[in-house]
Amino acid sequence: MKIISIPVRESWEELFRRPTPEIEEIEDQIKPIFRAVMSSGDEAVQKYTSRFDGVLVDSLLCSPQEFKDAEKALDPELKKAIQNAMGNIKRFHSAQKTTRVEVETAPGVLCWQEKRPIEKVGLYIPGGTAPLFSTILMLAVPAQIAGCREIIMCTPPNKEGKVHPAILYAASLCGVDRIYKVGGVQAVAAMTFGTETIPRVYKIFGPGNQYVTVAKQLATQYGVAIDMPAGPSEVMVVADDSAKPSFVAADLLSQAEHGADSQVVLVTTSQTFLESVREEINMQLAELPRKDLAQKALSNSKLILAESISDALDMINFYGPEHLILSCEDAEVLSEKVINAGSVFLGNFTPESAGDYASGTNHTLPTNGYARQYSGVNLDSFMKSITFQRISEKGIQQIGPTVAIMAEAEGLQAHKNAVTLRLQALLSK
Amino acid sequence: MKIISIPVRESWEELFRRPTPEIEEIEDQIKPIFRAVMSSGDEAVQKYTSRFDGVLVDSLLCSPQEFKDAEKALDPELKKAIQNAMGNIKRFHSAQKTTRVEVETAPGVLCWQEKRPIEKVGLYIPGGTAPLFSTILMLAVPAQIAGCREIIMCTPPNKEGKVHPAILYAASLCGVDRIYKVGGVQAVAAMTFGTETIPRVYKIFGPGNQYVTVAKQLATQYGVAIDMPAGPSEVMVVADDSAKPSFVAADLLSQAEHGADSQVVLVTTSQTFLESVREEINMQLAELPRKDLAQKALSNSKLILAESISDALDMINFYGPEHLILSCEDAEVLSEKVINAGSVFLGNFTPESAGDYASGTNHTLPTNGYARQYSGVNLDSFMKSITFQRISEKGIQQIGPTVAIMAEAEGLQAHKNAVTLRLQALLSK
Repeated sequence: MKIISIPVRESWEELFRRPTPEIEEIEDQIKPIFRAVMSSGDEAVQKYTSRFDGVLVDSLLCSPQEFKDAEKALDPELKKAIQNAMGNIKRFHSAQKTTRVEVETAPGVLCWQEKRPIEKVGLYIPGGTAPLFSTILMLAVPAQIAGCREIIMCTPPNKEGKVHPAILYAASLCGVDRIYKVGGVQAVAAMTFGTETIPRVYKIFGPGNQYVTVAKQLATQYGVAIDMPAGPSEVMVVADDSAKPSFVAADLLSQAEHGADSQVVLVTTSQTFLESVREEINMQLAELPRKDLAQKALSNSKLILAESISDALDMINFYGPEHLILSCEDAEVLSEKVINAGSVFLGNFTPESAGDYASGTNHTLPTNGYARQYSGVNLDSFMKSITFQRISEKGIQQIGPTVAIMAEAEGLQAHKNAVTLRLQALLSK
Repeated sequence: MKIISIPVRESWEELFRRPTPEIEEIEDQIKPIFRAVMSSGDEAVQKYTSRFDGVLVDSLLCSPQEFKDAEKALDPELKKAIQNAMGNIKRFHSAQKTTRVEVETAPGVLCWQEKRPIEKVGLYIPGGTAPLFSTILMLAVPAQIAGCREIIMCTPPNKEGKVHPAILYAASLCGVDRIYKVGGVQAVAAMTFGTETIPRVYKIFGPGNQYVTVAKQLATQYGVAIDMPAGPSEVMVVADDSAKPSFVAADLLSQAEHGADSQVVLVTTSQTFLESVREEINMQLAELPRKDLAQKALSNSKLILAESISDALDMINFYGPEHLILSCEDAEVLSEKVINAGSVFLGNFTPESAGDYASGTNHTLPTNGYARQYSGVNLDSFMKSITFQRISEKGIQQIGPTVAIMAEAEGLQAHKNAVTLRLQALLSK
């Protein structure tokens, strides 16, 4: 890990630069898959599943029997844990419900704003080395609370054409019973265009490798929305002497084990603390099963000595970390000044992994500096707000002249007419 | 206008199809401009302004003197109208403020969600035949309420290198004092990459022609967010015999005058009403200064006879109109069942143009069916939500085991360690 001591501001751009993904190159590989799924539907989906996942599945849709088998196969302790996590996630996301906002902006002019669920959403759950069932909770629970009518899920089958029981169990617990065995670019394309079996959705959620990420980006050109653009996962820890080096080291490592491209940054005002964390990391690293991945991530990572907590705060807002851990005395005060971050963890007993799984907050968060302009997934991600208005006869007399003058000045006579016709009708009444 | 009588559901897909924009072709013309602005900054911006707007401006930034001159030049009546509209927009968007959502999801596990302003936003205001100063109110007012730190604006200069006084006045009234004289693709590129003069922003808002629209879409590949994808403006009017044909005709025409590609749809349950609207349209059309544009739009537009109000409702949600006017007896009841629409206008005295200018609702709305998954611009468009959590010693003992079991099952040992280390520290206390 690189140690950087009191970096001058001019160096921050370089210091906090993230690796740039090569979108164009990947896009060229993705477009033919999109075109094939658009024109050949299921047939293309099956072809690419066979090519990339090395398996031919009889039926793309998981059967009720597969759900039953999963329920039986899963360790009861794990089931209980999933239920606990789901309860907390449900509590936090239910609290995010909003009510109608209603204002009489002028006498007789009543305006209101209401939210409506997005009717059709698609959740993507990656395969890979481990079954990421926790992400199902993070997406399906708020989708249910929002009232989305159609919630479907795509996840790649393993070599035996099966889906991990933990995935089936978590989905079923959240009321998602339509899981399609398809992954990667072909899954994103299928949810974008629809096939004979897989329905088209209005918004696609969920993480994935860089192919899935670029595919989601491409999908937006075909009228589908996505949760957010994505990049490698990252954590920034800001700590002072009140923090525990072993805890902080464990938090940094839990981010590093995600993958070789994970970003791990420590900012501290204490030189001795920094040294202790470095030692702890080396000790804990040796024990990790995924230590090779973690080591690669650490080689790009930074331990930064900051001149003051105020400088550290500026670094936070400059970098805009996906995860931010504030292990310092006045974490609460500092947190109020955080503008750019996805999810913030305060104090010594709040590891990021709590939020990754079970505290109730969402773990689908903006990476790659996108915390500057994107929210993490929350209840509103599954809804949209609509405005309504009802203007009375008195109301149109109030604001009509304003509308007429402005429309005239913008050269839009028919806009003016729509008001003046009504005003005249009221005059002649 | 085409009249369609009680269309069967199988025909709806075709009936409500919108023209597909040709993104790829336009993108090829846009990319060189992006590359030039990325590498040459102001120089490229000036070059393209000279090429496309036919003018060389001395300074890209509008001067304080230009603002003062605009204030003097503008008709006092128009100034007053702009102030009135701003007041209503401010009232409605201020009411959209939300407070912290806080939940103790489990004993000792405190989670909360707060919103923060997007620090840097860029507003794009098109030039063209008329100065669209109303859009400034719709974007700058909520940006101010949200607390965005840096609000800049780009708008193309006219042939004399000037910006229309109504634009300068409206911007200044909203506290926007940094207006750059640059339009089109080069404006979007400048706000995406930043130049010597024009700062890079985190999110770009505002309407534009199809080049600007595709440029905004392209900008998202370079880490910038946009308000929403855009297409031609559209209105759907659902009316029964309680509506006034002349009012409805005026509303349809006010949409049609926007441009040849505007979408105008009437759905009614009354054959006689439909005929009356058609006659009214022909009468009112003859008087319009923009009648050529309107006539072209009308030639693609539809008057649909629906079997029932319930069928009409299904058509609304199928089409997902940007603007929806409900001129029918039970508009209120019907409005509660609307799921896909941008902004809804209820009753006989609520023309769309009221919302376009002065009622207080926003007029930057999802077109092209995007109302299925996007909100119109609102206060939240200028903010993002961040989650926070603080877990006590008791809290981590509560949820720690759940986290450990789930992390283990996902094969993420370091995630588990971050919790178990803390649990052990508490045990040995």
